[in-house]
Amino acid sequence: MRLSIDPPLDPGAYPFAHPVRVRFAETDAMGVVHHAAYLPYLEEARVAYLRAIGHPYPEVRAEGVDLTVLEVATRYLQPLRFDDLVHVHLLVGKVTRATFQIAYLLTVEGEARATAVTVHGSIDASGRPTRLPAWVHDLAPA
Amino acid sequence: MRLSIDPPLDPGAYPFAHPVRVRFAETDAMGVVHHAAYLPYLEEARVAYLRAIGHPYPEVRAEGVDLTVLEVATRYLQPLRFDDLVHVHLLVGKVTRATFQIAYLLTVEGEARATAVTVHGSIDASGRPTRLPAWVHDLAPA
Amino acid sequence: MRLSIDPPLDPGAYPFAHPVRVRFAETDAMGVVHHAAYLPYLEEARVAYLRAIGHPYPEVRAEGVDLTVLEVATRYLQPLRFDDLVHVHLLVGKVTRATFQIAYLLTVEGEARATAVTVHGSIDASGRPTRLPAWVHDLAPA
Amino acid sequence: MRLSIDPPLDPGAYPFAHPVRVRFAETDAMGVVHHAAYLPYLEEARVAYLRAIGHPYPEVRAEGVDLTVLEVATRYLQPLRFDDLVHVHLLVGKVTRATFQIAYLLTVEGEARATAVTVHGSIDASGRPTRLPAWVHDLAPA
Repeated sequence: MRLSIDPPLDPGAYPFAHPVRVRFAETDAMGVVHHAAYLPYLEEARVAYLRAIGHPYPEVRAEGVDLTVLEVATRYLQPLRFDDLVHVHLLVGKVTRATFQIAYLLTVEGEARATAVTVHGSIDASGRPTRLPAWVHDLAPA
Repeated sequence: MRLSIDPPLDPGAYPFAHPVRVRFAETDAMGVVHHAAYLPYLEEARVAYLRAIGHPYPEVRAEGVDLTVLEVATRYLQPLRFDDLVHVHLLVGKVTRATFQIAYLLTVEGEARATAVTVHGSIDASGRPTRLPAWVHDLAPA
Repeated sequence: MRLSIDPPLDPGAYPFAHPVRVRFAETDAMGVVHHAAYLPYLEEARVAYLRAIGHPYPEVRAEGVDLTVLEVATRYLQPLRFDDLVHVHLLVGKVTRATFQIAYLLTVEGEARATAVTVHGSIDASGRPTRLPAWVHDLAPA
Repeated sequence: MRLSIDPPLDPGAYPFAHPVRVRFAETDAMGVVHHAAYLPYLEEARVAYLRAIGHPYPEVRAEGVDLTVLEVATRYLQPLRFDDLVHVHLLVGKVTRATFQIAYLLTVEGEARATAVTVHGSIDASGRPTRLPAWVHDLAPA
């Protein structure tokens, strides 16, 4: 796989955090949040991050580009529970000509619950892989 | 609301049934299937029904028509549990020029677990309400 | 069905509103929010309402009571789209000894998009129907 | 991460396959299956596999053991679309005293669409990590 970031466990290492309140619909019969429900949390945090840096995703899409998910890896450390207020911390990692990676740390009251990495590419309106928008390159770590 | 059918509790009253196996992801922290997870069951049964009567939904869409959901009503009688094999029975009820209704009965081992009614309309590729495909009228009860 | 409220279309008729931002994961191939995704919005608003009136749902559950969903009815008026900021307005309607009803209006920038009604009962830890918590009766309209 | 298997792209390398029909509810506004919706497909295939080898998951749970998901990694190769009939191929990889891994290949008409790996542990009824059921060790590759 292309995944190359190891998400830090220190919230201070992340420049951005987005709060998500756990819905009851996201729990399962083990009494905790189902593992698939974490992926929309990551996505919601990405969208909030893009809005925060001046590139709201609806505008990105209106310009004819969709940012696709090429890979996801999630590591579940401690369960999330109904009504938990989860902070999804994120940082942009490696950016190449065609892909970029984001690392995530999910915390509840400062305690690590999960880490994740997503790898993204971009496609045009016809679904073909296309160059990343120029501003994505500015997000790369120095 | 437009809903006008009272779904019968007798499986024999329905001309079509579609089996769905409950996924773990669909349960919640009460240990039963979350109430929102029933709606995709109804949808899956509708799609299977359209396929069975010779109108696979991808073909319907390819002809430029989307069947939209205007209303849904669900009544939860007894919980569904992980791994239950649910039979979703359905029958087409009232068909008007612009809408049609479907009634559903969900059973496990012949026992009623839920009933539902959906009301549908159709839109064209631009999202505007359009006439129902002609074959929908043939589905109306005699 | 037991449903007896007709949700008003005027946001001013509702004592409580809760904002929900539409996730991309909640859209479908018609480009709008999938009809099943509205139910978790209603649930999130109910939970926020209970917190606001001093009965956080985790505390309700800790006291051995679960509020179950007996019926749901939703009417879709205008589509919701990705990234819309939806206000879920709610009001408690009829309260009986064993059930209570909630009416909802979903708006985006003040414009009605959907209405809904849910009917609830309560069960104890063993899953048996039980009396509603006393405070629920105080929520009934005068 | 603990992930150590690289899922083969040849369906013939997998001893088990489970068919899943894509639901409309699982698509998103890009017109393809949302990346989070793949995880319940993997889970459904695991459950079908356990049933096929004589260890239905409800029985596993009744014996007081839950198999938890410690890690998931998914690689999206080609999109899945509404109504696709997806075959989820799986094989059990490395088994240690406390964890085991499963590799997956998703195909449509024999064509690879995605690969994935999940890492699992087991917990007892109180949520504490516990030894894997003995039969899991028999699933390890020779």
